[in-house]
Amino acid sequence: MIDKLEYTNKHELIYLDQTLLPLKQKYQKTKSYKDVAEAIQKLRIRGAPLIGIAAAYGVVMGVHHYKTENRKNFEIHFYKVTETLRNSRPTAKNLFYALDRMTKVFEENIEKEFYEIEDLLLREADAVFDEDAELCKRIGVNGSELLGEKMTVLTHCNTGELATGGIGTALGIIYTAKNQGKEIFVYADETRPMLQGSRLTAFELYENGIEFDIITDSMAAMLMKEKLIDCVIVGADRIATNGDVVNKVGSYSLAVNASFHKIPFYAAAPGSTIDFDISTGEEIPIEERDPEEITRVNGEKITSDKYNVMNPAFDLVPNELITAIITEYKIHYPPYNFGSLKHMFQSYIQTLRNEQEDTE
Amino acid sequence: MIDKLEYTNKHELIYLDQTLLPLKQKYQKTKSYKDVAEAIQKLRIRGAPLIGIAAAYGVVMGVHHYKTENRKNFEIHFYKVTETLRNSRPTAKNLFYALDRMTKVFEENIEKEFYEIEDLLLREADAVFDEDAELCKRIGVNGSELLGEKMTVLTHCNTGELATGGIGTALGIIYTAKNQGKEIFVYADETRPMLQGSRLTAFELYENGIEFDIITDSMAAMLMKEKLIDCVIVGADRIATNGDVVNKVGSYSLAVNASFHKIPFYAAAPGSTIDFDISTGEEIPIEERDPEEITRVNGEKITSDKYNVMNPAFDLVPNELITAIITEYKIHYPPYNFGSLKHMFQSYIQTLRNEQEDTE
Repeated sequence: MIDKLEYTNKHELIYLDQTLLPLKQKYQKTKSYKDVAEAIQKLRIRGAPLIGIAAAYGVVMGVHHYKTENRKNFEIHFYKVTETLRNSRPTAKNLFYALDRMTKVFEENIEKEFYEIEDLLLREADAVFDEDAELCKRIGVNGSELLGEKMTVLTHCNTGELATGGIGTALGIIYTAKNQGKEIFVYADETRPMLQGSRLTAFELYENGIEFDIITDSMAAMLMKEKLIDCVIVGADRIATNGDVVNKVGSYSLAVNASFHKIPFYAAAPGSTIDFDISTGEEIPIEERDPEEITRVNGEKITSDKYNVMNPAFDLVPNELITAIITEYKIHYPPYNFGSLKHMFQSYIQTLRNEQEDTE
Repeated sequence: MIDKLEYTNKHELIYLDQTLLPLKQKYQKTKSYKDVAEAIQKLRIRGAPLIGIAAAYGVVMGVHHYKTENRKNFEIHFYKVTETLRNSRPTAKNLFYALDRMTKVFEENIEKEFYEIEDLLLREADAVFDEDAELCKRIGVNGSELLGEKMTVLTHCNTGELATGGIGTALGIIYTAKNQGKEIFVYADETRPMLQGSRLTAFELYENGIEFDIITDSMAAMLMKEKLIDCVIVGADRIATNGDVVNKVGSYSLAVNASFHKIPFYAAAPGSTIDFDISTGEEIPIEERDPEEITRVNGEKITSDKYNVMNPAFDLVPNELITAIITEYKIHYPPYNFGSLKHMFQSYIQTLRNEQEDTE
């Protein structure tokens, strides 16, 4: 297992700087919630589930390292911390899911002693982390049912250990299938502009002994045509209740191509990715990022800064192009209706928590 | 007009090194045909029509700078030169088209004095260059009929002044439409791995005052979905007689997406791109290039060299996904049958030559 993130008993967060992988494995250490927000914004910590986890610990640090005796100031500071973290990135649901959980714990215990509140917040952040690891495991088991004994899987961006609290979502399915003895070959889209595929997915697959080829994003279609791809599995940054999925830009092109070539297109994500408040993907905000992500690589210019650039980080895959969505709960097939399953996901998390408390 | 290539009266070739654009405009100078072959192989000179032109001048240099009195040696040397140039890149038809023309001139005049043969070869190379410029003009005029008064065009790779002897093929159509007063906005795919879009097309469009945005290749599909693209125009590296087009990798994905979104997909190329000897695109060899094109950018590592990479430079767009093919002769619609037009293209070139000779 790759050590990607750890919260120490000195109330500091140690995390692997993902912008430097795979050429450098460098850990950063911080006691500042503002650093956590910046690390998320700069993609040093990335992956929808992992940014939720990091933000939860960011809240704990923000509270712990703030000194006051005044309850009003304590409260104002808490909301300043969560607001800063909430504004780090706009698209992934898991970030808001984690911050909402932290806020709920805070508000339910506002009358308690400061040290007690802090302790409860830390327990909640740990729960977000541990539960995500457990959800990954279950997504892996559920999703591996979709993979035959010998399969070639195309994947996009990074959806593995580096992106989550556990083994990953789309990659977690691949690891699970491999552990079940299935023979899996992966084509990893390099995933421009930030190259999470050729940098992070390649790093993980190599470490986990999975055979793979890196390809540029635009090659996927020709591989489908040549019948080299059995299925596509991607992650998700936010899912609407109708099953529309917002994920790393390029996912939509893959879904169209998969549909054209009659290849299954799957999305894998924990319930924390589902936004039960929105009914279609059109309502999900798409983050527009810095043009320099496209005009520079590793800080070096590849083209002139004077040229105009579009850089949406995500795109929307409409539900009709998605063969199935895999969550910790089960494999969901169209027509998707996640709204009716909200309580199912919540009670599922509650069951996990009870199980964990029993073992403590 | 960008100065991209010039053959001097000192029998040297001066060319713009396209791997350094747009950040550096550096000209290289050589008297060696081997350098020309290497420049083509390394993409310092690129674009299907332009590599044909460069190869033709390479032949002239190869003959001029070889000193012998022996006719047999002269002949052996000629074939060594053309063979070296022929092996520089495997996919673009225009390279073989130009070398075949040079060989025909050589063989038809083999009995003449060496200086006369050399002179005829130079005239033929000049003809290949001048004719290509003229063909671009006519492709521009033909293709611009397909563009309305206000259009948004998606293009891939570089198909303009830098790729041809004239104004270009797909980009030539855009320039022509602009000159006719039409309002054209271009989305330029960056075109991984070699970034001909963000480097070369952006450079050209900027120099020519055309408004554009650079996008990553995988963003094209979402722009089509959002109805931001009126049509796609690409070039071609080789066309089979049934209208199958081999072009820069990623073209196939665009064609599938264009078809899915009911957007016209056009290919533009001179007749020299058509391979009259092959009936379907499946017969066209696809060049596999160095993995370092994907693992490095500007010579700097972006990921580890130990990871496996696939790097086909081209892919095949089957004729059923192509709305029209634009040549110097006309706009061709399906079903394509270029075999029946072979003599038409030949007599067209002959007409051009006669016109040029009349004006000399």
